[in-house]
Amino acid sequence: MSFFTSRWVETPGHVTELEGVGLPAGFRASGVAAGLKESGAPDVGLIVCDAPEPASAARFTRSGVLAAPVLICTERCELGTLRTVVVNSGNANAATGRMGFENAAKMQGAAAMVTGSPEGRVAVASTGVIGVPLPMAKVNSGILAASKELRADGDGDFSAAIQTTDAFEKRARLSVQLSRGTVTLTAQAKGAGMISPGFATLLCFVQTDAALRPETCDLLLSVCVKRSFERVSVDGQLSTNDTVILQGSGASGVVIAPESEDELAFGEALDALLRQLALMVVRDGEGARRVGRVIVRGGHDAAVAAVAQGVANSSLVKTALYGGDPNWGRIIQAVGAAMPGTAPLPVDITIEGVTVCSAGGVVPHDTEALAAKVARAEVEYEIGLPGEGAESEVYFSDLGHEYITVNADYTT
Amino acid sequence: MSFFTSRWVETPGHVTELEGVGLPAGFRASGVAAGLKESGAPDVGLIVCDAPEPASAARFTRSGVLAAPVLICTERCELGTLRTVVVNSGNANAATGRMGFENAAKMQGAAAMVTGSPEGRVAVASTGVIGVPLPMAKVNSGILAASKELRADGDGDFSAAIQTTDAFEKRARLSVQLSRGTVTLTAQAKGAGMISPGFATLLCFVQTDAALRPETCDLLLSVCVKRSFERVSVDGQLSTNDTVILQGSGASGVVIAPESEDELAFGEALDALLRQLALMVVRDGEGARRVGRVIVRGGHDAAVAAVAQGVANSSLVKTALYGGDPNWGRIIQAVGAAMPGTAPLPVDITIEGVTVCSAGGVVPHDTEALAAKVARAEVEYEIGLPGEGAESEVYFSDLGHEYITVNADYTT
Repeated sequence: MSFFTSRWVETPGHVTELEGVGLPAGFRASGVAAGLKESGAPDVGLIVCDAPEPASAARFTRSGVLAAPVLICTERCELGTLRTVVVNSGNANAATGRMGFENAAKMQGAAAMVTGSPEGRVAVASTGVIGVPLPMAKVNSGILAASKELRADGDGDFSAAIQTTDAFEKRARLSVQLSRGTVTLTAQAKGAGMISPGFATLLCFVQTDAALRPETCDLLLSVCVKRSFERVSVDGQLSTNDTVILQGSGASGVVIAPESEDELAFGEALDALLRQLALMVVRDGEGARRVGRVIVRGGHDAAVAAVAQGVANSSLVKTALYGGDPNWGRIIQAVGAAMPGTAPLPVDITIEGVTVCSAGGVVPHDTEALAAKVARAEVEYEIGLPGEGAESEVYFSDLGHEYITVNADYTT
Repeated sequence: MSFFTSRWVETPGHVTELEGVGLPAGFRASGVAAGLKESGAPDVGLIVCDAPEPASAARFTRSGVLAAPVLICTERCELGTLRTVVVNSGNANAATGRMGFENAAKMQGAAAMVTGSPEGRVAVASTGVIGVPLPMAKVNSGILAASKELRADGDGDFSAAIQTTDAFEKRARLSVQLSRGTVTLTAQAKGAGMISPGFATLLCFVQTDAALRPETCDLLLSVCVKRSFERVSVDGQLSTNDTVILQGSGASGVVIAPESEDELAFGEALDALLRQLALMVVRDGEGARRVGRVIVRGGHDAAVAAVAQGVANSSLVKTALYGGDPNWGRIIQAVGAAMPGTAPLPVDITIEGVTVCSAGGVVPHDTEALAAKVARAEVEYEIGLPGEGAESEVYFSDLGHEYITVNADYTT
């Protein structure tokens, strides 16, 4: 088994993958089936940090329509000292009004009670269908049942309980060698559709037994989320529920001091972890066959970002990727669309190292050789705009029949 | 036969549909097969206005990457007095560099020669695959052949010669009763994919025998394009080649004076014509099954426009439309995504007259009755944001298996 499967993520030398299940010291987790999913699959999960002084940080969707659990987290949680996380899948508790807010508050209260945490130290997350009231009797039974199943190796069960349309598990266990000792870093993520560079429909929970201050958690999570979950797109759709939470128990006794070598080394591990998880979300992509990476270089930050997102979200580029079609005309179309009124724009386009367009005009190339390269699992597009110094990248899934099947035939 | 098939376009009382083919007095057109399309279908077309003082106006894509024919039109044409239009399909002559520009200039020169027009009065348009050099020997033979086929009833042949992935013809002939007499209004359009509210991948040519000044052509075309081709989206993709040209021969002798009743009446006819053509482009939509209309009302112009485009371009909303799924959670997701940082946003959503969400929370409704309504050919979504006075609408296609098949399996 290998977690780091993408050529776009380098495994740091001080990071080792661990097999199986098992949380860092100081954590317990569980996942149970509470009947929210018609399939009978697990749908309520808990993570508890038992350490005396847990540290944490969180990031949420920027949507103008926030799900009730996100509102609870941002309005009623001490995000730097979270102890417990309670999650349900099968229902997003979004666009559910006042009652939805109260239901999220009730989830917080129930999880606080069964785990012995103060309410303000319990984060709530939900994922699933939008606009349907939460069946609270089931949720409450689930939280109670999950509290009885909490185990140090419950991360696999928890991971199963947060999935929705995911085709495969997105979970990792890493050992990170630091100068003062070894720490463990684990994560459980979910997400496949409603994924945008603005953030993903995504829940991601990360645990470590390193001893970090809340400010260090916040700094590292902030930097790493920008380089991972904010750089992926499945369908350009920003979700109402995106939540990423990092918790540190400190149980290893390995202190990560601000601005230390170990902070950098731990940050590198977290960066690789979240980037690979983000790529797994894209690879899942509700039926994706291939993953693309677009890198745009030029002289203006706003322009390179707009072009990277425009290409990654172009349904014509994505269907070409799905078809294994080296049709770079659709790429330059997406570039032009992202920069209205700037013609004539001297655009350079290189696909898998083959330059197909220079200064806006076609460059003769071996089309058949290129066709073979774009039929692989990962395809890289480099785009050059005028100027230099600015760069932006987005990882994106293709758009194919499986996405239509997943999204047209089910209420998700 | 009826051209005005959408409930969203009212046929003005003074407009009558005409059957068959036939251009307004003063025009001839033709379409021939020159071998640009592998299928052997027609691919080079000409329209010529034989009137002594033709009037015209044109609109083009705002992409940062403009096709060579668009550059020729904007840099080397007297757009107010166009006499001839030469079009090829099967090749967009876009991203073809200096040679592409020269080829478009050669098309202009060839069409000028065979139709006896000054070069500056010949507009050039191309549509098809991007980034492939034009086979000029075939194009030149095609232009010569087309010039020999010019006929007063050549609009059907011309219409066939401009199609690419279109599943059906987009052509109309209308009789317009004005106070000073009756004029004829004809149009030939193409477009199915690469269609965005910023404009469509679209070629549309409109002819009338009314006597208009160039300024009147420009004013009327400007207003009507804003209400039609700028309000439709198939896939949110802005093309490199979009061109709309209105030509008036004046051959009817019916003068349309600025700021007259007849200007208003003619404008109403042009508006209905272009709106119905735009809806036909959406209905074609490279395999579309259903057409949606989203109307957003609120207090801020930028917000209502962003939300209308966000909903119309959401692949989750579009796959739900394809599936006939009344999943309004995806609509509110798209609304929130279009207005980051504004939570909590009191959003109202009404689908086909059924209010499903009020002030951001679910409103109990008959889901089965709604499901039946969203399974029809046209589905209307009304979205209310805070405030009033601003409104924006977009017509959009669904996203289904046929779109994937068209775009993943062919180089278009």
